Amino acid sequence: MHTKVKQWIDQNKDDATKLLQKLVQEGSVQENEEGVQELVRAHLEKLSLEVDYWIPCEDEFLNHPYFCATRTDFSKSPNVVGTWKGTGGGKSIILNGHIDVVPAGDLNQWDYDPYSGHIENGKMYGRGVTDMKGGNLSLLLAIQCLKELGVKLKGDVLFHSVIEEESGGAGTLAAVLRGYTADAALVPEPTNMKIFPKQQGSMWFRLRVFGVSAHGGTRYEGVSAIEKAIPVIQTIQKLEKDRNERVDDPLYAKTPIPLPINIGKIQGGNWPSSVPDEILIEGRIGVGPQETLEDVKAEFEEAMRNVEDVWFEKHPIQVEWFGAQWLPGSIDVEHELMGILQDRYKEVIGAEPEIEASPWGTDGGLLTQVGNTPSIVFGPGVTAYAHYPNEYIELEKVFQAAEIIALVIYDWCGSE
Amino acid sequence: MHTKVKQWIDQNKDDATKLLQKLVQEGSVQENEEGVQELVRAHLEKLSLEVDYWIPCEDEFLNHPYFCATRTDFSKSPNVVGTWKGTGGGKSIILNGHIDVVPAGDLNQWDYDPYSGHIENGKMYGRGVTDMKGGNLSLLLAIQCLKELGVKLKGDVLFHSVIEEESGGAGTLAAVLRGYTADAALVPEPTNMKIFPKQQGSMWFRLRVFGVSAHGGTRYEGVSAIEKAIPVIQTIQKLEKDRNERVDDPLYAKTPIPLPINIGKIQGGNWPSSVPDEILIEGRIGVGPQETLEDVKAEFEEAMRNVEDVWFEKHPIQVEWFGAQWLPGSIDVEHELMGILQDRYKEVIGAEPEIEASPWGTDGGLLTQVGNTPSIVFGPGVTAYAHYPNEYIELEKVFQAAEIIALVIYDWCGSE
Repeated sequence: MHTKVKQWIDQNKDDATKLLQKLVQEGSVQENEEGVQELVRAHLEKLSLEVDYWIPCEDEFLNHPYFCATRTDFSKSPNVVGTWKGTGGGKSIILNGHIDVVPAGDLNQWDYDPYSGHIENGKMYGRGVTDMKGGNLSLLLAIQCLKELGVKLKGDVLFHSVIEEESGGAGTLAAVLRGYTADAALVPEPTNMKIFPKQQGSMWFRLRVFGVSAHGGTRYEGVSAIEKAIPVIQTIQKLEKDRNERVDDPLYAKTPIPLPINIGKIQGGNWPSSVPDEILIEGRIGVGPQETLEDVKAEFEEAMRNVEDVWFEKHPIQVEWFGAQWLPGSIDVEHELMGILQDRYKEVIGAEPEIEASPWGTDGGLLTQVGNTPSIVFGPGVTAYAHYPNEYIELEKVFQAAEIIALVIYDWCGSE
Repeated sequence: MHTKVKQWIDQNKDDATKLLQKLVQEGSVQENEEGVQELVRAHLEKLSLEVDYWIPCEDEFLNHPYFCATRTDFSKSPNVVGTWKGTGGGKSIILNGHIDVVPAGDLNQWDYDPYSGHIENGKMYGRGVTDMKGGNLSLLLAIQCLKELGVKLKGDVLFHSVIEEESGGAGTLAAVLRGYTADAALVPEPTNMKIFPKQQGSMWFRLRVFGVSAHGGTRYEGVSAIEKAIPVIQTIQKLEKDRNERVDDPLYAKTPIPLPINIGKIQGGNWPSSVPDEILIEGRIGVGPQETLEDVKAEFEEAMRNVEDVWFEKHPIQVEWFGAQWLPGSIDVEHELMGILQDRYKEVIGAEPEIEASPWGTDGGLLTQVGNTPSIVFGPGVTAYAHYPNEYIELEKVFQAAEIIALVIYDWCGSE
């Protein structure tokens, strides 16, 4: 089978490259996903999958406790699921890829038009090519390969082409709530071909630290919120240290800070000669694969109640959880799918795969926790270029990932 | 003489109150000083002073090292000096009051229209009434009183009605450079009738602390400018402590922090999940009465070069001096004018005056350092309401100050 798959992929690289280019050229930032999803729908129909193309709007979806989005109207943002029904008796798999991309940012920092899909030296450039349209293409190629080789799978293959991953995962939530779950899932986010059986979740926090205003010349008549912010920041640093000292998972052995707490923004005061009476601090806290969002929130809030300074007894720090959140995801490292993936990786690549835990959240968290579908993150994209100017992917990696994934599906779902 | 002065002032309170009300009603924020200065000119002409009414625009003025303003065009902002020439052989005095006011701010926080000059329970309300049109009125009343009592002074009296004090003192600089200096000066800024023989100067600084951006999930790949800002803030706190430990002037005995360094603004980062690569810090440093701006700048910059963290060796903190600055001002506490003022204060008020050093700068700094005119700050306004909503002054204090100042002029300048 390996030889057949390899041959088929070798013969179809040109077409696959063109398809990836088209996916990239359909720039799909938030609220502009329709064009690319039409393309995906057409391709899935060509592959004779059952296609579900819908606008997420159900009450259960919009009111779900893990619904997290900057909007509630998705009328221009269809979700797509293609189902390849198995003959029965096999295990099912979700192949999940988000189709939304982050904005291109400052165009002057790009060497090529971010929506050109320009190819040079075996690399395709463009916004979203690594995060994660290249990974999606590996999935589509794997399905097409098995189809065209005439394979009859026993288990179902569900291809999720979802919106909103970059803004909190509402697309995958909608797919899961619509019933598109399976025995396991594969999410080809850009991992540099590393295998991530565990994925960190994260949440955003906003703190308000209060002081009392006064003229700078008599600043002792006021209380500086900037001075009060220092022990708050130091408490966050200590909390990060304490939390990371508890991490003993060998998958994190090489990670300097497995569960980082990042302070991303600070802002306060508006006049050099006035004592600032309020400081805003915004940041992100990592949530371990085995933690719940709720427990981490409680631990953080407790720390903020215990910042050492009597001032805070009467002027407590306000804690708000806002914006995006990503649930942590995981699969048992001894899970059968992990074994298959590692074996097939070695077969195709000829080396041992690197197995780590991801430092960021993916839709694998919602698949795991809401869809009850254990998830592995493994994909061909270049981690360092996700969200960056000159985002690119090595096309050869896309084909290698497709080859591995085709063989994984074949093993996992079983065939007649 | 005291009885005559007191009687004359008692008889002229109504007219004086009306004049103050007119001055307040001519709201004179930056670039709107013409109306009030016309009023001042007319009044000075009525008192038969020689009036100089001019637009500051001289090269010497605009290029002066202590020229500090947000503009170079003063075409709508005349300066006024009225001179009462003495008969000769006496000491001259400058009576300096700025005519510009800060903006009224949020009108909802005012109980009355800030430009109404509303009177209630012996208080007049309005923007600028305390800072410092009430003080200016004390000066005008003192001059008018002596004039109408037929006093022939030996020394000259120079009345400065200057623009731009609130924005760096360009009005007083222009007056001084035009030759309007004297043997001593009195500046009736709102001191609650305290006598300030020394006035703190101040400057604004802007710091940029640099880091390296990264994704929050792998924050160890970056360097947080917020974390780097903490030792910077702590160094500023230590510098403030060191500088204040050197202050042994008894005038500062009651002041918790004689020379404060205020951090008024902090801003950096723009995304909760990104490591911030730059933090901006703005603040104000107090300059002691005996210090120069240059020495304080050098001491501050030295401290910023020595923040303890090897990071700064290759990523030095940027220091910028921007916006307004106020020179410190002073007069010897044993100066003859100090003695006269204290004696006359006791005579009029029946109690010892409080003598302190001001925690903020005034035009007394430019008078002292550029005009070589030692300056005392003493005025009837309410310190706490300067720049605040519902700014007010107690009219009785305005008259008391006028009485004291008339007697001081009479003593200092001498009479035929």
